Amino acid sequence: MKVDFSKLDRAFKPKTVAVVGASKKNNFHWLRNLSEFQGKVYSVQVNPESIEGIKALGIENVTSLLDIPVPLDLVIVTTPRTLAPRILDDCILKEVGAVHFFSSGFGETGQEEGKALERALVEKAERANCHIVGINCRGIFTPQIGLKQIAEQYSGLSGPVGLISQSGGQAMTFSRQAFLQGLTINKSISFGNGIVIQASDFLEYFGQDPEIKVIGLYLEGVKDGRRFFEALKKVSAQKPVVILKGGRTHDGGRAIASHTGSLAIPIAIWNAAVRQSGAVSVPGLEEMIDTLKALLFLPPVEGDRIGVAGGAGGESIAITDILAETGLKVPELTQKSYDELDTFFSLVGGSYRNPIDTDIGPNRRHLERVMMILSDDPNIDLLLLMTRAGKFLYSRDLLEKDIEIAGRIRQKSTKPLIAVLPFVTPEEMQETIEIIPRYQRNGIPVFPTMSRAALALKNTLDYHRFKRVKAVP
Amino acid sequence: MKVDFSKLDRAFKPKTVAVVGASKKNNFHWLRNLSEFQGKVYSVQVNPESIEGIKALGIENVTSLLDIPVPLDLVIVTTPRTLAPRILDDCILKEVGAVHFFSSGFGETGQEEGKALERALVEKAERANCHIVGINCRGIFTPQIGLKQIAEQYSGLSGPVGLISQSGGQAMTFSRQAFLQGLTINKSISFGNGIVIQASDFLEYFGQDPEIKVIGLYLEGVKDGRRFFEALKKVSAQKPVVILKGGRTHDGGRAIASHTGSLAIPIAIWNAAVRQSGAVSVPGLEEMIDTLKALLFLPPVEGDRIGVAGGAGGESIAITDILAETGLKVPELTQKSYDELDTFFSLVGGSYRNPIDTDIGPNRRHLERVMMILSDDPNIDLLLLMTRAGKFLYSRDLLEKDIEIAGRIRQKSTKPLIAVLPFVTPEEMQETIEIIPRYQRNGIPVFPTMSRAALALKNTLDYHRFKRVKAVP
Repeated sequence: MKVDFSKLDRAFKPKTVAVVGASKKNNFHWLRNLSEFQGKVYSVQVNPESIEGIKALGIENVTSLLDIPVPLDLVIVTTPRTLAPRILDDCILKEVGAVHFFSSGFGETGQEEGKALERALVEKAERANCHIVGINCRGIFTPQIGLKQIAEQYSGLSGPVGLISQSGGQAMTFSRQAFLQGLTINKSISFGNGIVIQASDFLEYFGQDPEIKVIGLYLEGVKDGRRFFEALKKVSAQKPVVILKGGRTHDGGRAIASHTGSLAIPIAIWNAAVRQSGAVSVPGLEEMIDTLKALLFLPPVEGDRIGVAGGAGGESIAITDILAETGLKVPELTQKSYDELDTFFSLVGGSYRNPIDTDIGPNRRHLERVMMILSDDPNIDLLLLMTRAGKFLYSRDLLEKDIEIAGRIRQKSTKPLIAVLPFVTPEEMQETIEIIPRYQRNGIPVFPTMSRAALALKNTLDYHRFKRVKAVP
Repeated sequence: MKVDFSKLDRAFKPKTVAVVGASKKNNFHWLRNLSEFQGKVYSVQVNPESIEGIKALGIENVTSLLDIPVPLDLVIVTTPRTLAPRILDDCILKEVGAVHFFSSGFGETGQEEGKALERALVEKAERANCHIVGINCRGIFTPQIGLKQIAEQYSGLSGPVGLISQSGGQAMTFSRQAFLQGLTINKSISFGNGIVIQASDFLEYFGQDPEIKVIGLYLEGVKDGRRFFEALKKVSAQKPVVILKGGRTHDGGRAIASHTGSLAIPIAIWNAAVRQSGAVSVPGLEEMIDTLKALLFLPPVEGDRIGVAGGAGGESIAITDILAETGLKVPELTQKSYDELDTFFSLVGGSYRNPIDTDIGPNRRHLERVMMILSDDPNIDLLLLMTRAGKFLYSRDLLEKDIEIAGRIRQKSTKPLIAVLPFVTPEEMQETIEIIPRYQRNGIPVFPTMSRAALALKNTLDYHRFKRVKAVP
């Protein structure tokens, strides 16, 4: 089926939404999800007992979609599966932008009844060119207008990230975790079984959306491999795409069959195809978030020689091992840099070969100077500041100074800068969450652990290297 | 030098401690560290300006160690390096249990002056059989008696973990992180350059200590490889030892030289020797904590077939992939189990092949029954409960039910059980910290992420398999 982007525009930024099947039994879940929605919400429900509760929420209820007097940009269906075909008929008559089926129990169950219902939906939708989101999914999250997958998501703000996920759980976990890491969603879609509108369609749609700068993809399988990888190649040339594949292992492949009914693909073939497309493969949500962050905030970096300031003793060594084991380098500096360090750096209790230990003690006050030496050193491509939250051997005052210094270095230096800001306690985690956006506003991505920083950086370097090689005629 | 364990007994559980060099300049740091120490503290300081502050802390000051009228179990030296040999002379005269040099700036600087001072200390100590802890280190942490490496550490309680660390930073980070994971230190030592008492000595000492059930080791190098690996083999046969080696990479090896003056060892050789000794190698502090936890709370497990309850949709698949990629198995159950599940499990929206999705929805109330089916299934060796903190699609009530159910399963089942309890927000982290000990009291180790659980489990299985193979005559 040919996808009509103007219909997706209506679905992702609707002015009118109808929820079919909100009931007392499901605590009017999907109506509550829309409590901050900036457009008009209708409810479709025939059960008098539930209608009462819907009215108590201040929402207008009708007994048929066709009774709604305005065009509908998005219909959200939360009824049991058996009612789905009839509701789809009404959506087709109503010429809705898209219809999102939260309802599940179709092909993914493996049962005949579910499979037959799914086939009926596909046939109806394709004949009428009706855009189905789903089935068996959480649908659309456009935070800017308060269109949510669940009430606890944020609204009233917007960011540069597009997320396309087969799983609703992964979509919601991503939006929560990414937000705490200073990454805000622009548009997110959970599309479940993807029986009509598929991953390739959403990918191409996000590819041409100027508000979306980076795209995350969680997939368990694709219906049409050739088309998907063509779309992936096209979109990856426009903006970074980071892919997490669920069901990479034999046991995982078995597990996806009963989740979204996807077929397992040998992971080596999948990874090769992803690499050829210029997208980035990751093995988990955390690495997806971190990689999107690095791709978003860093310029097109390719050099892998890291100059590290901060950290102390054993931590400096852990930093170095982790970076080196991830395939990055922590090289020695030029003699010129060491000569300059010799003029002021206290050797007692401080490493200074790279990493340069400016964590605490007498060298702490030289942090900015040390970072400029790293910045000026021709052996170094990228600067890394090891800072931290909390009061354990540190203080808010030192943390604030780190932010100021990093901001100045980012201005003065031509080399990219990243920061690592680990936390141990909940209080430190809270402090970290408040600090991260302040760094990132200055173009300095912040990572919660050295391992996460290293992987994100490696993925980012690989992405830009691949892009340059491909760009050579 | 032959180590005298009775001297180490005095040092790790001292009744009397003297701090040499506490001063206004270092904010009487080491005296403050001892504010909860249950024995008697003396200060040795000649500077009248600092003596005033010491007296204000309520601590008795003398101007020479030799003026202290009682035997000293432990002396902590915090003076500049040049004073170290003279203080050591006094310690020898005083026949102290051990002397801990926090002072740094010796061999690790690479400078002649530092090296010469270090040689002088070694010669004096060996001649007199004086037990030096350090130099360039944080010394001893025995929480039970309030003997600390830093004031922020806990006191008045004791656990089963022994930690031996060349780095003070790593020792302090370990004690903080492990504590939040429900692992309490029994004795911890940071020994820095280890010029007299070395890793092998502390290892043998902890090996024969009945209070210590598991040992963590952070090392950058060892002075006498043969002796160390003999000690490691001997102690690993008595209790689990988990080793983190700093300086595993070329760049990391360069970094350790300027930290503790250790020589780099090719990591392949190191790992082979560790494996032959029956100890467990890990690449980071987190994995060390998790592995010690699994070794501590689980019986000697060898079977790698995991039955998973909880989790939903995409999360179930992530769980399966992570376990399988770590080398564990998430197998199909026997037909008998599926037949039993068929009698009550709702197929709509729930996977039930393994993992079995009991996260939310209609199957949630069957969690205990599902876990008993997994427990009775001959295809399964070990049970895993996926639970979570926070209010996002979950509740404290559900979390409490999970704890109760897990406790009952642990009683009824002959198979080991682990739990995974992830958090996203600081509030959820706080909730997690409160919950972890409640599971672990029941012999159920809890891990914050599936990846961490999988690695800890794999290490634990490998440890017990190696032990059994070695035990075969």
